[in-house]
Amino acid sequence: MPASFDRSPLGLAQALIRCPSVTPEEGGALAWLGGVLETAGFTVHRPRFSEAGTPDIDNLYARIGTGAPYLLFAGHTDVVPTGDVAAWRHAPFAGTVADGVLYGRGAVDMKGGIACMLAAALDYLEAAGPAFTGSLGFLITGDEEGPAVNGTVKLLEWAQARGERFDHCLLGEPTNPERLGDMIKIGRRGSLTGKLTVQGRQGHVAYPHRAENPIPGMLRLAGALLAEPLDGGTSHFDASNLEFTTLDVGNPATNVIPAEARATFNIRFNDLWTAETLGAEIRARLDRAAGDTVRYGLDLLPSNSPAFLTEPDAFTDLVMAAIETETGQVPQLSTTGGTSDARFIKDACPVIEFGLVGETMHQTDECVAVADLNRLTAIYTRVIAAYFAASARSAPGG
Amino acid sequence: MPASFDRSPLGLAQALIRCPSVTPEEGGALAWLGGVLETAGFTVHRPRFSEAGTPDIDNLYARIGTGAPYLLFAGHTDVVPTGDVAAWRHAPFAGTVADGVLYGRGAVDMKGGIACMLAAALDYLEAAGPAFTGSLGFLITGDEEGPAVNGTVKLLEWAQARGERFDHCLLGEPTNPERLGDMIKIGRRGSLTGKLTVQGRQGHVAYPHRAENPIPGMLRLAGALLAEPLDGGTSHFDASNLEFTTLDVGNPATNVIPAEARATFNIRFNDLWTAETLGAEIRARLDRAAGDTVRYGLDLLPSNSPAFLTEPDAFTDLVMAAIETETGQVPQLSTTGGTSDARFIKDACPVIEFGLVGETMHQTDECVAVADLNRLTAIYTRVIAAYFAASARSAPGG
Ligand SMILES: [Zn+2]
Ligand SMILES: [Zn+2]
Repeated sequence: MPASFDRSPLGLAQALIRCPSVTPEEGGALAWLGGVLETAGFTVHRPRFSEAGTPDIDNLYARIGTGAPYLLFAGHTDVVPTGDVAAWRHAPFAGTVADGVLYGRGAVDMKGGIACMLAAALDYLEAAGPAFTGSLGFLITGDEEGPAVNGTVKLLEWAQARGERFDHCLLGEPTNPERLGDMIKIGRRGSLTGKLTVQGRQGHVAYPHRAENPIPGMLRLAGALLAEPLDGGTSHFDASNLEFTTLDVGNPATNVIPAEARATFNIRFNDLWTAETLGAEIRARLDRAAGDTVRYGLDLLPSNSPAFLTEPDAFTDLVMAAIETETGQVPQLSTTGGTSDARFIKDACPVIEFGLVGETMHQTDECVAVADLNRLTAIYTRVIAAYFAASARSAPGG
Repeated sequence: MPASFDRSPLGLAQALIRCPSVTPEEGGALAWLGGVLETAGFTVHRPRFSEAGTPDIDNLYARIGTGAPYLLFAGHTDVVPTGDVAAWRHAPFAGTVADGVLYGRGAVDMKGGIACMLAAALDYLEAAGPAFTGSLGFLITGDEEGPAVNGTVKLLEWAQARGERFDHCLLGEPTNPERLGDMIKIGRRGSLTGKLTVQGRQGHVAYPHRAENPIPGMLRLAGALLAEPLDGGTSHFDASNLEFTTLDVGNPATNVIPAEARATFNIRFNDLWTAETLGAEIRARLDRAAGDTVRYGLDLLPSNSPAFLTEPDAFTDLVMAAIETETGQVPQLSTTGGTSDARFIKDACPVIEFGLVGETMHQTDECVAVADLNRLTAIYTRVIAAYFAASARSAPGG
């Protein structure tokens, strides 16, 4: 528990960046965060989850207040690996500021976002004093960038088993493509991965009639999956998209027809599909293309990434208004990009995502403008204030 | 030089099989063969050739007689590796006979064939005595199954530089698919190998517009090469055939769009093409399919395997007649199968190929019926006798 600390958004972000919390390492990040929250009056829990085949993971759940409504901030302190440290302009865990820019792994994804949430909560609670009658919480995992098995899923189960109920959640992932204020995410596409194999029979290239080359069959099946768009998109979603990520035979002999070809594809799909209906469509396309001539196998990997949408409501309006006030921009409501832990939270309460600018996330020299940290803190502070002010007038939510 | 030895086709084949001459090892095979030929009155040369990047190779050239015409027997004593020796019914270099079948690596490809040539030559020369006024030769390499750089090509150059001129050549490769007498090879298809790469730009599957997946481009180019037959075949040749032998991306990450896709194909082509005209056709097809959207590279490997045909002539008739007399079958004149050293010999003199049954070549338990060794020896003996008898009446050749 820190006795005293730099409460500025920059100071909080630096403290977090200096904890080397590459998944699955806690790296001191959650311990430090818990200490700050306890000092501010939160009740802090640090559940650790485990499951065979995956590393044990530290998590954090903190709440202040017992009344309604309950606004939950969500996020993760784990970060992706640094890659070649020598390629970084500033050491990735140093938290160096240069020309008004904070450098470090997690600067935008998403230790910077957590620092802004924390600064906003501390500011708001201090200003509100005993007038605060709602509940404010932090649900922070150390397993978002990893397998996501011992993180948000189990943390939500654990909290709900204790009787915790949330009214709205704001997830602080870096949602803005270029400038702070660009984009709120109100849903995410689903993700489905398939592994396709085509069987043939090995032989010599000079005697093709004695062999069966699996490559033409693979070309035909892969072509069939790419030939027709899966759909044309929906009101809040882009068209579903299939990408082949690899295609391999691994035959070094230029005079040998190989026995098997393998491919992997990943589909980012919209709310027209579930993993099940999409899997059935893929199989139907493959069966039609294969006919009686191509022998194939399809292995659809289990998916815990469904497509989901949080219908825009009064909470969305309130976040949009805060963003517009601080940035002068009307944010786009989007469902683009990769998956996030919002796919788990959406079953507990309406969840939307807004955070920093994602441009440098997962890259060398990940960084954030100090001005963006201050502005995001101001946005979050407005969100908290407006949320509990609205509840003083009426029941919140949509 | 062996003082005495088993002169039967079986005994000669066993002696050769017992020399472990896996390319590039001479294994004692050429030394033994040279000894036998010297004993029979041949002048024997054992040139050894070398070239940077390839192993040194032992070869053999032997000639008896100085008159015309000159009939050359050609072949190789090197053999392909045994694979798992434990999987063989009889040790691959033991020369075991069981139930009238001789087992061993090289039994049909082509130590058995050399043994038959040798037995036929010895029989014929002994019977003809001083009546023999032509020339009979052996051109035997130890580098047919390997890179074929220090073998027949250089041995022919070496012999021609010494003033050696041949009238006809019989190459003893195993030409028969199922039964002795099935097939004479009067030419071979050419072979051309190409390596195709398609460039893209790496990225995350959730942001395909920021990346460029090379796999759809590869599917399109590969499909374009397979879409239309290269030709419909010619009077003595099957249609040219293209096989993709591998197709690789090697991307283990199911959420990453890869940067490059690579494929290798091999074409067996007929006498409508040279490696140059075929390469131009391949490039034209790729350019049409690529348009402005697919960035590709094509690397055509240097080919020393042209398509060639030895037009059937009086020598072919004579070999056919010998086969029909001994087997009761009229052999098919074919250009099917892989390449052989005939592609080099055809520039020195007309060359046709006839040998044992190829069914077990390059396989575990390679074997030959002892009856086939005796019958092929009888065929070769008839060929030699008829060839020099014909020359006694008129100038041979076609
Ligand atoms: Zn993140
Ligand atoms: Zn051979």
